[in-house]
Amino acid sequence: MEKLRIGIVGYGNVGRAVELSLRQNPDMMAAVVLTRRDPRGIRTLTPGLMASSIEEAERYASEVDVAVLCGGSATDLPVQGPAMASIFNTVDSYDNHPRIPEYFAAVDSAARRGRRTAIVSTGWDPGLFSLIRLLEEAVLPEGTDYTFWGPGVSQGHSDAVRRVEGVRDARQYTIPIEDTVARVRSGEAPSLSTRERHLRRCYVVAEEGADPGEIREKIRSMPNYFADYDTKVSFISQEEMERSHNRMPHGGFVMRAGKTADGTGHVLEFRLKLDSNPAFTASVLLAYARAAYRLHQEGAIGARTVFDVPPAHLSPKTPEEIRRSML
Amino acid sequence: MEKLRIGIVGYGNVGRAVELSLRQNPDMMAAVVLTRRDPRGIRTLTPGLMASSIEEAERYASEVDVAVLCGGSATDLPVQGPAMASIFNTVDSYDNHPRIPEYFAAVDSAARRGRRTAIVSTGWDPGLFSLIRLLEEAVLPEGTDYTFWGPGVSQGHSDAVRRVEGVRDARQYTIPIEDTVARVRSGEAPSLSTRERHLRRCYVVAEEGADPGEIREKIRSMPNYFADYDTKVSFISQEEMERSHNRMPHGGFVMRAGKTADGTGHVLEFRLKLDSNPAFTASVLLAYARAAYRLHQEGAIGARTVFDVPPAHLSPKTPEEIRRSML
Repeated sequence: MEKLRIGIVGYGNVGRAVELSLRQNPDMMAAVVLTRRDPRGIRTLTPGLMASSIEEAERYASEVDVAVLCGGSATDLPVQGPAMASIFNTVDSYDNHPRIPEYFAAVDSAARRGRRTAIVSTGWDPGLFSLIRLLEEAVLPEGTDYTFWGPGVSQGHSDAVRRVEGVRDARQYTIPIEDTVARVRSGEAPSLSTRERHLRRCYVVAEEGADPGEIREKIRSMPNYFADYDTKVSFISQEEMERSHNRMPHGGFVMRAGKTADGTGHVLEFRLKLDSNPAFTASVLLAYARAAYRLHQEGAIGARTVFDVPPAHLSPKTPEEIRRSML
Repeated sequence: MEKLRIGIVGYGNVGRAVELSLRQNPDMMAAVVLTRRDPRGIRTLTPGLMASSIEEAERYASEVDVAVLCGGSATDLPVQGPAMASIFNTVDSYDNHPRIPEYFAAVDSAARRGRRTAIVSTGWDPGLFSLIRLLEEAVLPEGTDYTFWGPGVSQGHSDAVRRVEGVRDARQYTIPIEDTVARVRSGEAPSLSTRERHLRRCYVVAEEGADPGEIREKIRSMPNYFADYDTKVSFISQEEMERSHNRMPHGGFVMRAGKTADGTGHVLEFRLKLDSNPAFTASVLLAYARAAYRLHQEGAIGARTVFDVPPAHLSPKTPEEIRRSML
C-alpha cells in the first residue's frame, strides 16, 4: 500500500509532535517540513526528512498528499491556511472561535481555486469537542450543554500575566470547578455564572524588588481574563517554574443534561485528560489528514470541518474491519 | 419546510418512545404505525395517526420518508430489516453484535434492490458507543479501550433469572465496578478480567415455598450469564418489584487510555447516564432517521452504519449555524 505523504507546515511544538506521531500511523510518512524560518536551521528527527522554505511550497505540490498546518491561529494560519489550501489538501487546528466563519470562507475559496480539500479547526476544541457538542444535541434535543476546560495551561492567559509589570515569568492553569461538574453530572442542568464554572490558578516569578501584593491585585482585576473568576496567584522561583511547570497538560468536559419527551432525564459526557496538549492535538490532526485525503479522493472540493467527515474516514481500518470489531 | 415523514414499525416500548420523541423534533412528523399485531388493537398517542398491518407496508412507500424499525433484534429485525429496507429508507437499533455483519449484508442487498438507504445498528451500543470507540482509537492509535455498561437493567439477564425454577419475577442490573473505572480513568490501562469489570445484582420474587438458597446458588453458577461475575441476589416482594424496579435505566462508559509518540499519557472517556433506555434509544433513532433521509437525497444507496454518517447530517441546523454555534 502506498503511504500517505504528509507535509508538515510549521515546526514548533505541534509540528514536531506531528512528526513524532507519524511513528504511530504506519499508513503515513513525512514528505517535507515547510517553515517560515531559515530551513538550514532546522534539524528534523526523521532520517532523510528535509526542511524547506514555505515560500517554496508549490514545488512540493505533487509530493505531498496532505499538508498538516501547525502554525498558530493568531498570525500564521490566517495567511498560511488559504495559501496552503490552494496548493495542497490541508488540515489545521485554527482555534480562534469567533473568527472561524471568516477563516472557513477564506480557506474554502482558496481550496476551490486549487481543487483541494481543506479540513479546518480540527484538534480537540474546536475539533473533537465540537463534534461531541453536535452529537449530544442531535440525540438529546431538549437539554443544556456545558463545556468545561482544564485542568490545563492556557497560553493566552499565561501571556496576559507575563505582560503585568513586575512579572518575569508566569503560567496560568484553567481549572473546572469539581462541585459544578458534579452538579451537571447529577442531571441538575444548573444555570451557571462564569465564576461557578472555572477557577484560574497563576504561578508567577516576580522581578526582583517587585511588590507581590500589587502584582496579585493587577492580575485579579484584569478585565476579560481574570476579573470574572476566582483567581489564585502564587509566587514561585524561576527554578520551580522550570521544574514543576514545564509540561502542557490540558483537557476538559463536554456535557449535556436533558430530558426525552417522556420526561426522563439523561446525562451525556465526554472527557479528555491530556498530559500534553500539543502531542494530542498532533495526533488528532493526523487522523483528520487521513480523512482529508479520502474526502479528496471522493471528489470533495473546498473547506470542510469535523462535522462533514464520516467517522470511518478517520480510521486506517477497512469498513468491514470496523463493523466487525467496533460496532 | 416540508416535514420528514416517519413510519414507526413496531409499537412496543421503543415504538411508543419514537412517537413521543417526534414532539422534540419539529422537522419531523409521524406518518403511520406499522405493526405485526392486529392494527385495530392499537391506540396511538398522536391525533390522526393510524396503525396499519406491516403486511400493508408497500402501500405506504410514497408516504414515508424514513421508516424507524422498533422491533427486537432476536426475531423481528432479522426479517423486518431486509423487508422494510426494500420499501423504505430505514434506521434500526439491531444490537446482536456478533451477527451484525450478516444482518448488514442482508439489509444492504435489500436496500440496493429497492434503491433505498438503510442505517443499521444505531442507538447507543451499538451506535453512539461504536462511534466513540472508533473516534478514540483513530485519534489515539496506541492505547487500550474499555467499554463498561450500566448501571442498568439487562433484559437478557433478567430473562435468564426468570427461567430459574422457583423464580416468579426478576430484574437484573449490570453495574460497572467503580474502582476499576477509576483505575482506567487514572491512565493505568490495566488488563481486566470479566469479574473486575462489572458486577451483577439480581432482585428476585420467589414462588411460595421455593428455597431462596437454592435459587441463589442456581443463579450464581449459571454459565455465560453469571458464573464469571460476582453476583448479588436479593429477594423482594412482588409489590416492591413493581414499585422500585419498574424503570429501565441504563448507560455506561467508553474509555481509552494510551500514549502519544512522545510518551505522554492521555485518557478519553464518553459516558451516558440514562433514566430510560428505550426513550433515549428512540431519540437516537430519530437523529439517524434525519441522516438516512439526507444520505438518500445525496444518492447513497444500500446499508450504512454510524461510521458512514457525516455528523452534520444528524442535526436539524444548517451547516452555517453549526459552524457558528458549535465549532
